[in-house]
Amino acid sequence: MHEAGRRARAAGRVVAAAEPGQKDAALYALADGLDAAGAKLRAANARDLAAARERGLDAALLDRLELTPERIDAMAAGVRQVAALPDPAGEISDLRYRPSGIQVGRMRVPLGVIGIIYESRPNVTADASALCLKAGNAAILRGGSEAYHSNQAIAACIREALAGAGLPQEAVQVLETTDRAAVGALAALSDFVDVIVPRGGRGLIEYVSEHARVPVLKHLDGVCHVYIDEHAHPDKALAVAVNAKTQRLGTCNTMETLLVSQAIAGRVLPPLAARLREAGVELRGCERTREWVPDAAVATEADWGAEYLAAILSVRVVAGLDEAIEHIHSYGSGHTDAIVTEDLGRARRFLREVDSSSVMVNASTRFADGFEYGLGAEIGISTSKLHARGPVGLEGLTSLKYVVFGDGHTR
Amino acid sequence: MHEAGRRARAAGRVVAAAEPGQKDAALYALADGLDAAGAKLRAANARDLAAARERGLDAALLDRLELTPERIDAMAAGVRQVAALPDPAGEISDLRYRPSGIQVGRMRVPLGVIGIIYESRPNVTADASALCLKAGNAAILRGGSEAYHSNQAIAACIREALAGAGLPQEAVQVLETTDRAAVGALAALSDFVDVIVPRGGRGLIEYVSEHARVPVLKHLDGVCHVYIDEHAHPDKALAVAVNAKTQRLGTCNTMETLLVSQAIAGRVLPPLAARLREAGVELRGCERTREWVPDAAVATEADWGAEYLAAILSVRVVAGLDEAIEHIHSYGSGHTDAIVTEDLGRARRFLREVDSSSVMVNASTRFADGFEYGLGAEIGISTSKLHARGPVGLEGLTSLKYVVFGDGHTR
Repeated sequence: MHEAGRRARAAGRVVAAAEPGQKDAALYALADGLDAAGAKLRAANARDLAAARERGLDAALLDRLELTPERIDAMAAGVRQVAALPDPAGEISDLRYRPSGIQVGRMRVPLGVIGIIYESRPNVTADASALCLKAGNAAILRGGSEAYHSNQAIAACIREALAGAGLPQEAVQVLETTDRAAVGALAALSDFVDVIVPRGGRGLIEYVSEHARVPVLKHLDGVCHVYIDEHAHPDKALAVAVNAKTQRLGTCNTMETLLVSQAIAGRVLPPLAARLREAGVELRGCERTREWVPDAAVATEADWGAEYLAAILSVRVVAGLDEAIEHIHSYGSGHTDAIVTEDLGRARRFLREVDSSSVMVNASTRFADGFEYGLGAEIGISTSKLHARGPVGLEGLTSLKYVVFGDGHTR
Repeated sequence: MHEAGRRARAAGRVVAAAEPGQKDAALYALADGLDAAGAKLRAANARDLAAARERGLDAALLDRLELTPERIDAMAAGVRQVAALPDPAGEISDLRYRPSGIQVGRMRVPLGVIGIIYESRPNVTADASALCLKAGNAAILRGGSEAYHSNQAIAACIREALAGAGLPQEAVQVLETTDRAAVGALAALSDFVDVIVPRGGRGLIEYVSEHARVPVLKHLDGVCHVYIDEHAHPDKALAVAVNAKTQRLGTCNTMETLLVSQAIAGRVLPPLAARLREAGVELRGCERTREWVPDAAVATEADWGAEYLAAILSVRVVAGLDEAIEHIHSYGSGHTDAIVTEDLGRARRFLREVDSSSVMVNASTRFADGFEYGLGAEIGISTSKLHARGPVGLEGLTSLKYVVFGDGHTR
């Protein structure tokens, strides 16, 4: 692992100094290579799928693992999309003269070497590599054992594309080892790895955090809330709440708890419960909720902190905005929270006081996404507070250094 | 410590939601309080100084510890300066409509609770508290045992100022315990502390990094370089190099190693050596350096990585820009490095390729400083790559969250 790190550091310096055109050439070559390697990728993927079926993995995991022709097309298209983004590296901003006569500004620069640890979905191998390269970084990727052959087949395409563009093949290393000790070793390589991005379940992320000696960009639970304020427009409240819960059940930006102001509960809860029931959502409510929705199950303390990722919603009636914010700070995960209100003062307070990576007014939590935000692509959604919060795109894979220009200036 | 963290988290939410005017009122009250408490502060400081003398602490440390009337004035003036800065919290930037119809922007928000661990200089108690408060954060400070009475006297002024402005006194807690275990406990409070800022020697910073379960804004060694390129103007090269080494010897942005291109060594090294010798600087050179400066000592491998913080300079003659960059990446600490050249192409490469928190052209490394850069004040100089690099002011004590505005928008 030490050797992989050393090679990545050296390759990272070459990528950081490369012209944008050279990096883009590698990315377009990768997209073409993925298109051309369709049959090979599917054969490798078939081996992974067979092994996964033999091990009795569940249908959801098998689905995430599968590389269909459409998914290979989408993977290549994603890489082309990243190639077409403006190059973030080298941009100088805020360059100003200071009283001393020097000019001081900030230059956006690559982070260096990014470690990425992920599970099942093989498309991450291409997506994450493309983002890291575009930002001028080297990457060390460690995918899950269930996608071993698929990941290695994609890695072969990446190596070929790098070599074709005259960039070092070590700029993207897809580790062959899939045992967990490698994860800990990678996260501890403080001389050679600048940040670790774990993508996967809570178990993986906690394991990485525990072993990390380098900064971790965490993507933890999404316990997302929608708060329907007493000054909400009922139609908008229904639309936002139903969409936030049902548009997709298993994503981190799906609403898990609905908070409703007491003053409007009688007006919105009965029709909302009917709409959600129709969509097959099980409701678990507090006592006051059950006055309006008698067939809701009784919510327990455990429900308020739960990320169901399923057709279940906990519902709580609160006295008003203060109690809603208090609830979100006590039980939320700092991912995405929304208020529905027509009242500017309350919207203003919710935006300022709710301490989450995305805070919304009159919009579905499902919008918390790199593509929806216009980042072009995302490497994850950070619930960390430092460096990058919310959807992380190219900018999150860079940092700012100071640049100073003088003409022999001294202090 | 757990209880201190819990209280800080609660107080932090109040400070984050406070109006700028309320925070500023607390800061101006603190400045006035420091002015008024001059005699008390000096009496407390006298106890610390007496104890330090008894323990035989060295003169440099005694000097850093002392609170003279001028230093108390400067401390109050510093707090007023921070109060006068624009409030960073709540600023919304990049607010744009997206194709879906939502508006997406970013709001600058406080980090929450900042842990600050520092040694000797008691003025840090006031400076750091002021910066944290201004940015909307709560702070937990743990000063060194040698400054115990001084820090507690300043803490009393801070509590009074907070109470006078109607802010919770727990927004700034100066810990009474000074044993090292408290440092580890503070750095491990992941539920209540958002970032730890250690200010002090390498030992302290390594101890904190080892025990931290929260992100650390590191301020590590400054092994700073000046590279004199063959296209340097000799007068500017001399001015910059002499200033970078001699303007102050003990600061982290002082030059520790001089690199000189072989082609210009004969022209600049002899006069530069004379100037530095005059200033009392001991030179340790590579073999090629000693051809031009025969009385320089022989530099050993250990010299290239040394942060002398003293009147010693290591000097190396390199083949050119590539070897200079290579040397900086091998031995530098990523703090501040400068090139002296009139050649735009070489300046451009140095700026892009040298991976340090400040990279300079034709300016003394001594400019790497929050005040010189116009940050108004600084809480330290970060050699970390993530979140904040280089001098860290108010912006480094905040992060950006996404804000989304819709009108009942769904996905």
